[in-house]
Amino acid sequence: MKFRRSERLVDMTNYLLENPSQLVPLTFFAERYGSAKSSISEDLTIIKETFEQRGIGLLTTVPGAAGGVKYIVKSNLEEAHSFINEMCDIMTEPNRILPGGYLYMNDILGNPQVMKKVGRLIASIYAEKQIDVIMTVATKGIPIAYAIADYLNVPVVIVRPDNKVTEGPTVSINYISGSSKRIQTMLLSKRSLEVGSKVLVVDDFMKAGGTINGMKSLLDEFNATVAGIAVLIESSDREERLVDNYVSLLKLAEVDEREKQIQVTKGNYFDLLK
Amino acid sequence: MKFRRSERLVDMTNYLLENPSQLVPLTFFAERYGSAKSSISEDLTIIKETFEQRGIGLLTTVPGAAGGVKYIVKSNLEEAHSFINEMCDIMTEPNRILPGGYLYMNDILGNPQVMKKVGRLIASIYAEKQIDVIMTVATKGIPIAYAIADYLNVPVVIVRPDNKVTEGPTVSINYISGSSKRIQTMLLSKRSLEVGSKVLVVDDFMKAGGTINGMKSLLDEFNATVAGIAVLIESSDREERLVDNYVSLLKLAEVDEREKQIQVTKGNYFDLLK
Repeated sequence: MKFRRSERLVDMTNYLLENPSQLVPLTFFAERYGSAKSSISEDLTIIKETFEQRGIGLLTTVPGAAGGVKYIVKSNLEEAHSFINEMCDIMTEPNRILPGGYLYMNDILGNPQVMKKVGRLIASIYAEKQIDVIMTVATKGIPIAYAIADYLNVPVVIVRPDNKVTEGPTVSINYISGSSKRIQTMLLSKRSLEVGSKVLVVDDFMKAGGTINGMKSLLDEFNATVAGIAVLIESSDREERLVDNYVSLLKLAEVDEREKQIQVTKGNYFDLLK
Repeated sequence: MKFRRSERLVDMTNYLLENPSQLVPLTFFAERYGSAKSSISEDLTIIKETFEQRGIGLLTTVPGAAGGVKYIVKSNLEEAHSFINEMCDIMTEPNRILPGGYLYMNDILGNPQVMKKVGRLIASIYAEKQIDVIMTVATKGIPIAYAIADYLNVPVVIVRPDNKVTEGPTVSINYISGSSKRIQTMLLSKRSLEVGSKVLVVDDFMKAGGTINGMKSLLDEFNATVAGIAVLIESSDREERLVDNYVSLLKLAEVDEREKQIQVTKGNYFDLLK
């Protein structure tokens, strides 16, 4: 069965988007459509140009027998600016303030379209680095971790505050919560992480950084290394920051419980694009 | 700036896939590309045919001034069969057996490509029904809930076993765990679910169904209704089943700890396609 160029373009676009960060040999497409490799190359040129022009991402081509084409997520500055500005507005809605100056964020974390954008933006930073696995801690970091994993095409491992029989043998560490100074425990299933893995550590919110520091200690126990740290929101209260070299999309500058005012600005995301 | 048909096809495919279950007016595309509506209609016919032929999904067209085009996820039988067979093989690897006959599944739940397929298959069942929100319970149901939500384009709400300050006011219920017969608590943030919502209840594993029954009781408290129940795996131990009218992709028939043998068969998914 032969496919016309127009049909190939639609199906290839879908295939590449569904398989990001994965090298696809040209012969795969040639066989899929019963087409010559030269036609496939021409198709890919069109897709590549459109992906770049519309800010969808990059198509990189690896030449040679073991070569192929790879879709790499890459958000552009315009997308990042418009999304982060929109998020600043949403985050500062006064009814988000909870007793103690905490912010209600379940609606944001529960919105798959918002999570997709967060995933695209963060994945764009790490798409050309070696990331073997994404680690987060239950519960609120999970949707962010999966949203990034969808674009980087790597597994997610979830650290838990408590043990469950379905985890199998676990490794646990104690850590000091940066803000409350209390000793807490976190654990990770032993077989969920291979020795030597390069890990992107992710969370929804970072205040002093105690939780992220805990995950770093846990990685030490697995002889794994931190390949990056990314959070949706950092608190601007930097005095006691335990973590550096992280990416944040947003920065929570102030919560005034009495005046019902929240100040949210952009995080350090754009500094990293320079 | 004018776009050629080939570029439009690539960009429209991406746009539709990124915005499933959402009505897009033809004028949106016409303006986006500076093209006549008639050209856009022709583009959409090509995309529609390719989506159907390759088992990507359906494009439905709503005529009239308020009309437009909508991408609806729809996996075909071939995709479902091949994925479920593959999952049966993966699930029966003997080293999954944990003490007590539990199964290690973190690697499966942590694999974004597997979750995407699970999401596609389950979302295909519900894509043409009215689902306002997807509900699951922390922690292991979360990736499945988001994978479905990505395709249905609806928010996810997460029920928790414990309270956190960031939840705001919550509604809690007690429920009896079907298998252990212990009384447990689950709670949901009060503002996370609107009265009258039609809810798809999701979990990774269902044994007697106590947890899902708990979520149903919680929905009663919100005057919300169950629009569907879907699980990745059901246990075949049906005697005490508290829940009916559910969709399962897989069925765990037996775990023999001593012989290190696991028996997994397909769930009731295919019965529902008839």
